[in-house]
Amino acid sequence: MQAVIIASGEGKRMSQKRKDSPKPLLKLLGLTLIERVILSLKQTGVVEEILIVVGYQGEKIKKALGGGEKYGVKINYIENPYWRRGNGISVVRAKNQIKGNFLLLMADHIFEYTIVNEIVREELNGYDAVLAVDTTPAEYLDVNDATKVKLESDKITQIGKHLEEYEGFDCGIFLCSPKVFDYLQEAISQGKESLTDGMQKIASIGRLKAFDIGEKFWIDIDTPSTLQEAQRILCHRIGKESDGFISRRLNRPISLIFTRYLVKTNLTPNSISLLSFALCVVAGMFFMGGSYFLIVIGGIITQLASILDGCDGEVARLKFKVSEYGGWFDALLDRYADAFVILGMVLGILKSKGGISPWIWGFVAISGSFTNSYSAAKYDLIRKFKKRKWRFGRDTRYFIIFLGALFNQLYFTLISLGVITNFISLRRMWVLRKD
Amino acid sequence: MQAVIIASGEGKRMSQKRKDSPKPLLKLLGLTLIERVILSLKQTGVVEEILIVVGYQGEKIKKALGGGEKYGVKINYIENPYWRRGNGISVVRAKNQIKGNFLLLMADHIFEYTIVNEIVREELNGYDAVLAVDTTPAEYLDVNDATKVKLESDKITQIGKHLEEYEGFDCGIFLCSPKVFDYLQEAISQGKESLTDGMQKIASIGRLKAFDIGEKFWIDIDTPSTLQEAQRILCHRIGKESDGFISRRLNRPISLIFTRYLVKTNLTPNSISLLSFALCVVAGMFFMGGSYFLIVIGGIITQLASILDGCDGEVARLKFKVSEYGGWFDALLDRYADAFVILGMVLGILKSKGGISPWIWGFVAISGSFTNSYSAAKYDLIRKFKKRKWRFGRDTRYFIIFLGALFNQLYFTLISLGVITNFISLRRMWVLRKD
Repeated sequence: MQAVIIASGEGKRMSQKRKDSPKPLLKLLGLTLIERVILSLKQTGVVEEILIVVGYQGEKIKKALGGGEKYGVKINYIENPYWRRGNGISVVRAKNQIKGNFLLLMADHIFEYTIVNEIVREELNGYDAVLAVDTTPAEYLDVNDATKVKLESDKITQIGKHLEEYEGFDCGIFLCSPKVFDYLQEAISQGKESLTDGMQKIASIGRLKAFDIGEKFWIDIDTPSTLQEAQRILCHRIGKESDGFISRRLNRPISLIFTRYLVKTNLTPNSISLLSFALCVVAGMFFMGGSYFLIVIGGIITQLASILDGCDGEVARLKFKVSEYGGWFDALLDRYADAFVILGMVLGILKSKGGISPWIWGFVAISGSFTNSYSAAKYDLIRKFKKRKWRFGRDTRYFIIFLGALFNQLYFTLISLGVITNFISLRRMWVLRKD
Repeated sequence: MQAVIIASGEGKRMSQKRKDSPKPLLKLLGLTLIERVILSLKQTGVVEEILIVVGYQGEKIKKALGGGEKYGVKINYIENPYWRRGNGISVVRAKNQIKGNFLLLMADHIFEYTIVNEIVREELNGYDAVLAVDTTPAEYLDVNDATKVKLESDKITQIGKHLEEYEGFDCGIFLCSPKVFDYLQEAISQGKESLTDGMQKIASIGRLKAFDIGEKFWIDIDTPSTLQEAQRILCHRIGKESDGFISRRLNRPISLIFTRYLVKTNLTPNSISLLSFALCVVAGMFFMGGSYFLIVIGGIITQLASILDGCDGEVARLKFKVSEYGGWFDALLDRYADAFVILGMVLGILKSKGGISPWIWGFVAISGSFTNSYSAAKYDLIRKFKKRKWRFGRDTRYFIIFLGALFNQLYFTLISLGVITNFISLRRMWVLRKD
């Protein structure tokens, strides 16, 4: 399917933020707005070609995005020299390049990509276009400024900014038949040049369908404050279902602060995994020192590594870089990191206490840590994953080490770790057996 | 769907083997023949009720199988006092209990359950029955004794033992419409009482369809030698695709010998996993002893545990007891077993060599072993699993330990293990990164 993205407007209300760039090139957590639209479309797996209608500072957009090679999509451009006029004209400019039904999107609307997957599954029969509609808008929607729709079951009867009665809001995502161009041209010839004007034509003859997006996320980025809001929401959405207590309450809030900076760099998620691993090696070396001062530093670095361990996934999710390899690589590095930290603890303990017991406890702790991680994935899978308030994972293990280091109780911490982790692994065997 | 199993005959040619039992209760690797048919049907997931037609020593069969509760299926019985006559009569006895299209099977035919899944997907339109046909029979098929079919594309034109020209063999698995009863009754009234006679009636009017089973396994167990053959084939079929070199060439052939005995006991696959784990703990304790004699015994026990580690899965597959939990439980126990063996080695080495290096190498080896197992599953998954001649897994690790113990080189073995396993984990990271 082809997708048309309207990226021709000036975005006056953003002039302060965007400085000398067009609005579609505004950065949001490391990616420009239009890159987010493009990568979302790529993620749907149904878009073969993206047509971008450019106008205001179009050259800059073309230069930034190129032919789409770096995103793994095919991008072509359409020039609209009349970008100062209504955005309906931008849509009509694409007419000659469109081969069938197509998607129509805005460069400044960020959205959950599954909305697109669902809208393309809608049947057009009897309708000329389908519009994604939000009937339960979030509190950050600027109701005065938003385009509203009046509904009769799933038919849109009116669309416009100034409706007195309305049931939903225009999310800026359309599935269109090529007939839409005719309506738009008709509207333009009557001096009604906005896309909304053209859509109102279709609505008035009962051929505009609404697709209710339900609870899915979308946001129209028109002002600096909506940009802020979008940043807040995207960050909020990337926490993981499987986060344990420490992750959720302590690590995640801090890692998200790091991540806001990390997304602006060129660091890949895998480099961040490596960085977190390196911190664990360093922490292990500090533990080895054996003095209270060094142990405290080791403890702090351990906790820092644990926090940073969340950033790789966050950056991956925010930058559309999630990969199976990335998750696997991170998990494997984490196991090595665990080994270095525990080995460091044992060697540190040996400075003040000889004998083989620290070693034995080291073996016990490493076995427990490994089997915890080893068993977790399948345990969740078999138990169909219930969201639990308390999940004992790597976040908790590292927090215990952090606390133990602060209180200069490395040996006691090692023993606790060994006892707790193995208890959990055995408990999992037992619980699943009963199931 | 309903399935009818014919279990009424005497099975004269098996009289020596079966002693005082009817043939369906003959044991094959821990399960009776009819239990294998029932459990295969259960595995298909499409059979709701099993009707067993009993005759010769029917009471014994009823007593052995009961209402099917222990197999998780519903079993009902149909008596056929005329079991000495042709087996077509046994089929007709089921007539009043059949509600629609049904499966018809023989109590002495063992088969790959997917044949049933595929035959029920066949369309009957224009046909009254479908017969599973083998056009590429294995070398153990007794051609003289087998029922043959003559084909015209997928239509069976003739069926019988004494066809001169034929293209395939009757596998004894039918999908029937209730009309089949009429044809059988007609044949019986003409003195033709075998199922084959009735089927010939359907074939002669062009309403018997052939379903080619391709390379799938089936065997008709009529004689003591086919029973032997079935045992050989079933054992051969339970080796795992993912077996490494040591597994395939050394462990598997031996574990299959154990398994032939183990299936006759009540030991569950999970108990066998526990037994293998216990052997590893014992092996670790022998290693701890530190003397050559004890180390050799430890090495032998390690290898024995490695062999026994294959038996749990073999027994599970042979007795239809494969479970997700079982695989997970075994894998988790294996990790603990690894820890005990390596800990034992370290403590054994310390008897003759002090210092911290044996401990460090113990840490290295345990980390490598864990990360090997941890990374293997996903590595195979991401690489879409290519069958490799050499796979370095637990079988190889334990074989190295076994050899190292025989040559009294525990320390060198520990170091080798640490180097090799970690090299493999790092290599996997590298290979997948390039992919």
